[in-house]
Amino acid sequence: MSGYPQPPSGYGYGAPPPPQKEQYHQDHHNYQPSPQYATPYAPPSAPYKPDKPPKEGYSSYGAGSGSGGAYPPPPGYASPFASLVPSSFPPGTDPNVVACFQVADQDGSGFIDDKELQRAISSYNQSFSLRTVHLLMYLFTNSNARKIGPKEFTALFYSLQSWRGIFEQFDRDRSGRIDLNELRDALLSLGFAVSPTVLELLVSKFDKTGGHSKAIEYDNFIECCLTVKGLTEKFKEKDVKYSGSATFTYEAFMLTVLPFLIA
Amino acid sequence: MSGYPQPPSGYGYGAPPPPQKEQYHQDHHNYQPSPQYATPYAPPSAPYKPDKPPKEGYSSYGAGSGSGGAYPPPPGYASPFASLVPSSFPPGTDPNVVACFQVADQDGSGFIDDKELQRAISSYNQSFSLRTVHLLMYLFTNSNARKIGPKEFTALFYSLQSWRGIFEQFDRDRSGRIDLNELRDALLSLGFAVSPTVLELLVSKFDKTGGHSKAIEYDNFIECCLTVKGLTEKFKEKDVKYSGSATFTYEAFMLTVLPFLIA
Repeated sequence: MSGYPQPPSGYGYGAPPPPQKEQYHQDHHNYQPSPQYATPYAPPSAPYKPDKPPKEGYSSYGAGSGSGGAYPPPPGYASPFASLVPSSFPPGTDPNVVACFQVADQDGSGFIDDKELQRAISSYNQSFSLRTVHLLMYLFTNSNARKIGPKEFTALFYSLQSWRGIFEQFDRDRSGRIDLNELRDALLSLGFAVSPTVLELLVSKFDKTGGHSKAIEYDNFIECCLTVKGLTEKFKEKDVKYSGSATFTYEAFMLTVLPFLIA
Repeated sequence: MSGYPQPPSGYGYGAPPPPQKEQYHQDHHNYQPSPQYATPYAPPSAPYKPDKPPKEGYSSYGAGSGSGGAYPPPPGYASPFASLVPSSFPPGTDPNVVACFQVADQDGSGFIDDKELQRAISSYNQSFSLRTVHLLMYLFTNSNARKIGPKEFTALFYSLQSWRGIFEQFDRDRSGRIDLNELRDALLSLGFAVSPTVLELLVSKFDKTGGHSKAIEYDNFIECCLTVKGLTEKFKEKDVKYSGSATFTYEAFMLTVLPFLIA
């Protein structure tokens, strides 16, 4: 255990805000802050806290709101294949990030595709499967277009750096894998309190050994975090009253869920 | 086009009942038939039809309700890792199916695991990835235990045979792939009318060439059918009033969606 506070009884996605990783709690959707915001635990009637108001800087993903808010969440899921609007690097971007993108974007189009992204991030982190890359692209662009521009790339790059740090923090024996309890702590540090049943399911799904090691390696840890974070945010979009329940039409349900299932 | 009737405007999962594949419309859940049952299209206020009452024989999957209904859907998702109850082959099972299972179950335990199932079904059909096998096991046992017994194996085997037939029926040019329109017809023949947007998402997700061929090969077609069928049935379990909308708690949402993740 790492000293992270435990979630209240009755798990929800109201994990206490982590002390040091505030950027992960920003959100690109327009949730209104409320007085609950100041309390570390949301009251039982609202099992998760509203998101913090956006700050300057990078939100953890979905940061692709270019100048003028060019990438709002697609209204009514009308266009999951919406094309990306060209963007540029935010002021002050690490020159290494810019160089990394430019090497990948050989034709200078301002976008890189899935295989180019895979090469670009694998050189700075561990290797990533194409399906992890597709999930990253979907979540950082809010589109299935499978292209990514400088602004989204920068947000993605910094998030991967932070997640690498979190993984290493919780992989205390440097085994290259984190087990169920370590995953629970890691998800808590990102602001997600999931139930023991969900945790067990996550480990069984993302354990490359097919359930034998009951632990998750780094690339699957990233996929796991992306999945929990992405599904939780999509759920919250539908839970407008913060009641802990959300109603979906069949069409919205399918369009919400399918992008996470297969990549 | 194959002569299958088109869905009414306003897609739902109320595809008209196919003329020849009735077994796919049976369901292991306890939906009550209603007078709507006789109409080929559900009225707009109820965008999908109630399931047909169970018949003798094999339902397409989730058939693992052993004698006395030993495997009801887990109440409240309490135990997604529930162990399987031993079962036996239904009377009249094709001896080839029995032999196939017995070869795989070398220790005579009455269960086979994921790799054994992969070998068993790959010899009779095309090869399947372990991820497809895991999804098959989950959906035919309603458990993440990753073991499967004779009864569930038999249902799975016959479903794969039928799906192979459907795939070949709609792969009219024998290319080994079906495109978007062919997938639409194939899903309709299974009883699922999905919107053009969902269809496009499915093809983009299950296209092994990363979206270049805009078509799906056989093993991914099986994954696609399993995913659409499984998600639709889980959704219907929550849509008790057949309103076309369903409400999930966060926990139920996560436990519904995560088993479909293909990792």
